[in-house]
Amino acid sequence: MHRLVVIGGDAAGMSAASQARKRRGPDELQIVAFERGRATSYSACGIPYWISGAVEREEQLVTRTPEAHRRNHIDVRTRTEVVGIDVDARTVRACDLEGGTEYTEPFDDLVYAAGSVPARPPVPGVDAAGVYGVQTLDDGAALRAALTDEVHRVVIVGGGYIGLEVAEACQVRGLAVTVVDRSPTPVGMFDPDIGTFIADAVRGLGIELVLADAVSEIATDADGRACAVHTSSGRQLPADLVVLGVGVRPNVALAREAGIPLGPSGGIAVDHRMRTEAPGVWAAGDCVESIHRLSGQRVVVALGTHANKQGRVAGINLGGGYATFPGVIGTAITKVCDVEVARTGLSEAEAEAAGYRFVSAAVDSTTRAGYFPGAQPIRVKLVAEKRTGRLLGAQIVGRDDAAKRIDVLATAIWNEMHVDEVLSLDLSYAPPFSPVWDPVLIAARKAQDAVEAEFR
Amino acid sequence: MHRLVVIGGDAAGMSAASQARKRRGPDELQIVAFERGRATSYSACGIPYWISGAVEREEQLVTRTPEAHRRNHIDVRTRTEVVGIDVDARTVRACDLEGGTEYTEPFDDLVYAAGSVPARPPVPGVDAAGVYGVQTLDDGAALRAALTDEVHRVVIVGGGYIGLEVAEACQVRGLAVTVVDRSPTPVGMFDPDIGTFIADAVRGLGIELVLADAVSEIATDADGRACAVHTSSGRQLPADLVVLGVGVRPNVALAREAGIPLGPSGGIAVDHRMRTEAPGVWAAGDCVESIHRLSGQRVVVALGTHANKQGRVAGINLGGGYATFPGVIGTAITKVCDVEVARTGLSEAEAEAAGYRFVSAAVDSTTRAGYFPGAQPIRVKLVAEKRTGRLLGAQIVGRDDAAKRIDVLATAIWNEMHVDEVLSLDLSYAPPFSPVWDPVLIAARKAQDAVEAEFR
Repeated sequence: MHRLVVIGGDAAGMSAASQARKRRGPDELQIVAFERGRATSYSACGIPYWISGAVEREEQLVTRTPEAHRRNHIDVRTRTEVVGIDVDARTVRACDLEGGTEYTEPFDDLVYAAGSVPARPPVPGVDAAGVYGVQTLDDGAALRAALTDEVHRVVIVGGGYIGLEVAEACQVRGLAVTVVDRSPTPVGMFDPDIGTFIADAVRGLGIELVLADAVSEIATDADGRACAVHTSSGRQLPADLVVLGVGVRPNVALAREAGIPLGPSGGIAVDHRMRTEAPGVWAAGDCVESIHRLSGQRVVVALGTHANKQGRVAGINLGGGYATFPGVIGTAITKVCDVEVARTGLSEAEAEAAGYRFVSAAVDSTTRAGYFPGAQPIRVKLVAEKRTGRLLGAQIVGRDDAAKRIDVLATAIWNEMHVDEVLSLDLSYAPPFSPVWDPVLIAARKAQDAVEAEFR
Repeated sequence: MHRLVVIGGDAAGMSAASQARKRRGPDELQIVAFERGRATSYSACGIPYWISGAVEREEQLVTRTPEAHRRNHIDVRTRTEVVGIDVDARTVRACDLEGGTEYTEPFDDLVYAAGSVPARPPVPGVDAAGVYGVQTLDDGAALRAALTDEVHRVVIVGGGYIGLEVAEACQVRGLAVTVVDRSPTPVGMFDPDIGTFIADAVRGLGIELVLADAVSEIATDADGRACAVHTSSGRQLPADLVVLGVGVRPNVALAREAGIPLGPSGGIAVDHRMRTEAPGVWAAGDCVESIHRLSGQRVVVALGTHANKQGRVAGINLGGGYATFPGVIGTAITKVCDVEVARTGLSEAEAEAAGYRFVSAAVDSTTRAGYFPGAQPIRVKLVAEKRTGRLLGAQIVGRDDAAKRIDVLATAIWNEMHVDEVLSLDLSYAPPFSPVWDPVLIAARKAQDAVEAEFR
C-alpha cells in the first residue's frame, strides 16, 4: 500500500493528511503523522487569549485531537520526534520521546510540516530558567503554569504581533508589563505613522514600551533564573519572568540535513503545488517560503491561515487532485485592547525596497455613519504606484469593526486593481455599517488625487 | 459666464455641484441648485434611526446645509421646485414654494438629480391622512411628529430594507408593529433560505410579519384617516398609523416631459460619464439607470452610495476632468436588531433570470475563532456559475461583525473571480476577527466542491 508520512501534526501537516485521506481511503493509502508535542491541529494564535483567560480551557484551542484524527484513519503519533530523513532510502527515523526508543518508518510520499522555531536573540541568559516562548501549546501551558502569584513583573522581548498580544494578556492578568523592541515603533510591519497609533494604544493600557532599544542580556539571579532584562542603552528592567516574542524562523534543520533544498529566504523551496525539489517530498506551513505577489520575492510568513491553505493544497495533490497555492500579499491583523490594526500588500518601506515609486494617502473616517451610535474612528492608509495608480498596500488602524475592512483591500490588491477602480467598487452601505462613502473608498479617492497630482 | 443648473439638492445633485465647483471657481462657473425640500445633502438612509431615537437630532443627518453650500459659492435655492425644463431654450422653470412665484433660469449645463418618489400601491385609501412615507427628511419629520402618545398600532406596507428598518424603529418606540409583504419571505432580494433567517429575526423582535399577502385597501375612519389595512387574503389589520415602505421609483416625470430619454428600466438613460442623450444634460442618483455588471441589464438602484459616486462623476466631468461610473453589482446590507444581512451580485432567482446555469453552497461558521469570546454565528451563501466556477453572487446573514464581509465578495465579483481563486485569497486572520479559515473562504471551498462535483 502507498505510504504517506507527515512530519508535524499541526495546521499544515494535518490539513495535508486530512485532504489526502478524504480523497484516498485507508485501503489505498496509509498515513502516519509524527508530532513532537502532545496536541494536534491547534490554534497557536489563540495562545495569548488562553494566557489572558479570555479562552478558559486548553481544549478549546484544539480543532482536532489525535484521537479524532485516528478515527479518521490517520495514524497520529504524538510525543514522537522525527530525527532524521533519508530521502533516497525513503525512510524517516522517529524517536518516541516518552519511551526513548527510536525506529524507522518507510514512506512513499513525505510531507514536511515541521513549522517554525522561536527566534532567540543571541544574548547571554536567553536559555535561562524563567525565559518562556509562546509558540506551541506546550509553550503556552508552561507559561500559564509559570504565572503564579509570585510573578509581578513581566518583560516581553519583541513588540510584534505576538509580543503585544502576550503583553496585553499579562496586563489583563494584573501584571506590570514592559515590552522591549528594537524598532522606533512597535509592529515593524507597519509604517511609523500607523505604528505610533499602536504605541499610543499599548501605552494607554498601562504597558511600558521601550522602543529603539535592543536587549543586550537577560540577567540571572544566583539560582540561574532570569531576573532582569538589560538593553543596549543601559536600561535594566527587572523581571520575574521573561517572554520571547521576537518572532519565529522556519524549522528547517532536519530538511537541510536531508538535502531538501531551501530557498533564498531560508524556508523550504516549494512550487505552487507544495512540492519540494526532492522527489515525493512535499512541504507546507511555517517552514516553507511563499511568493509575495507584489514584490516577487520569496518570503517566509508564519501564519495559521497560510499553513492551513498550503496543507490543503499539498493534501489535494497527494490525493490525486490538483490544487495550487498562488502566494501571499502580506495580510495581517491584530487587536491591542480595543485598538485594531491590519495591513496588506506593501508598506512604504517595503514598496521602497521592492523598487516601486509610490504615493501614499491616509484618511480619517468612522466605522459607521458619523451620526450613528457606536461609530468609531478608523484610519485607512493606502500606498499606490506612481503614474499607474496601482494599489500596492494598505494599513488600517481603528476601533471596533475597523480592521477587518483590510480584506477588501487585500482582494483589490490580489486582483491588481488601481485606486481609481477601487473607488468605483460597489461596497455595501447602510448607516450601522459605514458612512455613505466607506472609509476604504474615501482612502481610494485621496490616493487617486495623489496619483493625479503627480501629473500636474 | 458658464451656468450650471442642478435639479435636486441631495446626494447626487450636490456631489455634482461640489465637484464641479472644486474644479471651476466662481469666476468661471455659476452654479444654481434647486431643492424642493428644506434640506440639502442629508442621509435619507438614516431616517429610520432618527425615528427610533438612535439618532437624536435632524441636523445629525445633514452632511452639508444649504448655508454651507452657499459659502462654497453654490447658489442653493431650497423650497423651490423645478416645474419645467426646456432643453432647446436651455432654461428651467422654477417655482418658489413659499412665495408661490415662478421664474425662468437659464443654463448651459443641467444636472438632473431629482431622486425618486415612493412607490404607492394602487389601492383605495393610499392617499388618506395617517399614511406616511419615509423617503425625504421632510417625510421623516412628519412621521416623527405623527408618532404621538395616541399611536399604538403601526402597519408597515412592504417588508424590504426600509420597511423592516422602520418596523424596528417603531418597535423600539414601544409600538405594536405589523409588516405586510407580498413575498413569502421579507426582503425579496434574498433567496428564500436567507429570507427565512430574516423573518425569524424580525418575529423574534416581537414584530408581526404578514407574508405572501398583498394590501388590498387602506381603510379610513369617519374623518378620512387611515384606521386599518386590509389584505387580499381577508386580513383586517387595525392601524393608528400606516407607513409605506414598498420602495421607490425614479422621479422622471419632469425629464420625460422635457424629452430627456429614459432607458428600458424606466430610469434616465445615461452613459458611463453620466451624460443623458440630451446634449449638455447630465443625470445622477436614484433617477438614473445603471448597468448591472453581471446581468448586463439596465437597473435602477436607489442607494445613497451610488448617488454620491454618480454625482461625483458628473461633477468631475462637468469640471473638465474625466471620470466614469462603471456600474453596479447589487450590493446591499441592513441590520434588523442584532441580525445583519447583506448581499451582492445575483441571487439564485436573479442568476436564473439572467440565464446563468449555477450551483450554490451555504456554510455556517463563526465571526471569530470558535473559542474566542464574542464569536457569533454567520452563514455565507455563494452562487457560482456551473462549469466555470465564476462567482456570481453572495448572501450573508449573521450577528455582530458578520455582514460587512460581503464587501470582500463584492470585490471578488467585481474582478470576475472564480470560487477557486477566492479560496486562495490572502485574507486577514487572528482569533478576535475570524476563524483560521474565514467564513468567506470556507464558503468558497464548499462552492468549489459543488462546481467540481458537476464534473464527476
